[in-house]
Amino acid sequence: MKIGYLGPQGTFAEEAGLGAFNFKEADLMPFSSVAEVIAAVEEGSISDGIVPIENSIEGSFNVTLDMLAFETNVFIEREVIVPIKQNLLAKPGVKLADVTAVVSQPHAIAQCRQFLAANLPNATMEAANSTAEAAKIVSEEDGQRAAIGTTLAAKLYGLDVLAEDIEDYKQNQTRFVMLGKNKVARTGNDKTTIVIMPHEDRPGILLQILQEFAFRFINLSKIESRPSKRALGEYIFFVDMDGHIEDKVIADAFKCLGCRFTDVKFLGSYPKA
Amino acid sequence: MKIGYLGPQGTFAEEAGLGAFNFKEADLMPFSSVAEVIAAVEEGSISDGIVPIENSIEGSFNVTLDMLAFETNVFIEREVIVPIKQNLLAKPGVKLADVTAVVSQPHAIAQCRQFLAANLPNATMEAANSTAEAAKIVSEEDGQRAAIGTTLAAKLYGLDVLAEDIEDYKQNQTRFVMLGKNKVARTGNDKTTIVIMPHEDRPGILLQILQEFAFRFINLSKIESRPSKRALGEYIFFVDMDGHIEDKVIADAFKCLGCRFTDVKFLGSYPKA
Repeated sequence: MKIGYLGPQGTFAEEAGLGAFNFKEADLMPFSSVAEVIAAVEEGSISDGIVPIENSIEGSFNVTLDMLAFETNVFIEREVIVPIKQNLLAKPGVKLADVTAVVSQPHAIAQCRQFLAANLPNATMEAANSTAEAAKIVSEEDGQRAAIGTTLAAKLYGLDVLAEDIEDYKQNQTRFVMLGKNKVARTGNDKTTIVIMPHEDRPGILLQILQEFAFRFINLSKIESRPSKRALGEYIFFVDMDGHIEDKVIADAFKCLGCRFTDVKFLGSYPKA
Repeated sequence: MKIGYLGPQGTFAEEAGLGAFNFKEADLMPFSSVAEVIAAVEEGSISDGIVPIENSIEGSFNVTLDMLAFETNVFIEREVIVPIKQNLLAKPGVKLADVTAVVSQPHAIAQCRQFLAANLPNATMEAANSTAEAAKIVSEEDGQRAAIGTTLAAKLYGLDVLAEDIEDYKQNQTRFVMLGKNKVARTGNDKTTIVIMPHEDRPGILLQILQEFAFRFINLSKIESRPSKRALGEYIFFVDMDGHIEDKVIADAFKCLGCRFTDVKFLGSYPKA
């Protein structure tokens, strides 16, 4: 069975699959969006999918969180953290002074805002679906557009690296997760992700949720609100915590939250990166 | 002095300026990105800027939050909530069956995912900087691409509406804020926004923050974490609360949070929408 990822070839998701997850090129299958990767896992046409869930600069990937909460029943099986290095790529012979437009995935453009303002103040910014797609677009034309993308993409599409490491914040990392249909056994160094979907908006909900964990000395590594999609100002809460759903305290917290908030969904227990 | 917004003409930001904020067309000045609008307010070349801060389906606009926290010293002076209706737009004569690609701002494409999967399963998705830019692009070519955008954009760029109200969730609203250099006087029905930037990551930070408000019976309408941009897993917290910074309880909470967490930034008190 194949492992899906956001293509085309040369994305950070592919780097994650080849590097940290250690799959072979032949096992990997590119998709044209994160939503399609997750949907393919859900319907079973691929065994697993590698998708980004959080970037240290730009924050969460909303499509990933929303599909996990609202649209699918898949589990997080593994996580991996990939350092993100953005580079300005152009066709061989093009110089920085020649560049009139920059194409990339909007997250990538946002990550290089200060570099672009300082070095290409007059260039227009154009959006692409992924950094690798941007590299592909630039490789197929004669114009003076540059792409922001990986050195892997530069190699694949025959582009030169005009400027290396152009992201504004150097601590740039993306957490990728591997999604599948299986629950993963306890290893002793695990993390659990759940999503709490309160059916009504009443004052103090978040405080009550946090107390449920504090009371059991469960350490939370992340809590994030997302819109409930029912009304502006109503939220659901994603929580990452230390521990495995087979640990008694975690199972208890999960059960008690379920009594109070009706919809509490288990998204997986998996080894910590 | 001019009021900036994300252009070109025909965006929801322009609708917000013309509608709820009641400016005249001649007062409004389009910019090509939200970042440029905010930077122009900061440097004083425009008096105010209208920018999106939160959508009920897709969540917060990260560029807006991050620039308010990290890069500027401007205040929220007013807020307005605009209903978002997405439509599929194409050149006159083009039918739904002819459409092979859809262009729009990635948020807008995400908002119509189910419609697109059901009606245009084979179309490719192409990214643009705004829904209005997408409409403009489609209006300038002969091809079979459609745009997702406003009926205002359809009118401005001479496009037909192929399908109305195509967003997956009908409760689709965006909260826009007007940013400027002035603090706004108390009206008695106000909201205050602050951002708390803890200098270290220790367990229970969020619980301590929430208790500071609960203890004073301050109602929070929103709390959102964003990456600190220093390391994966470190966050800052945006908090919206009922009340004005001139109210004693709000001023006290602000002061006490400042004692505990060092960096607490006031982003404005302003009348509730």
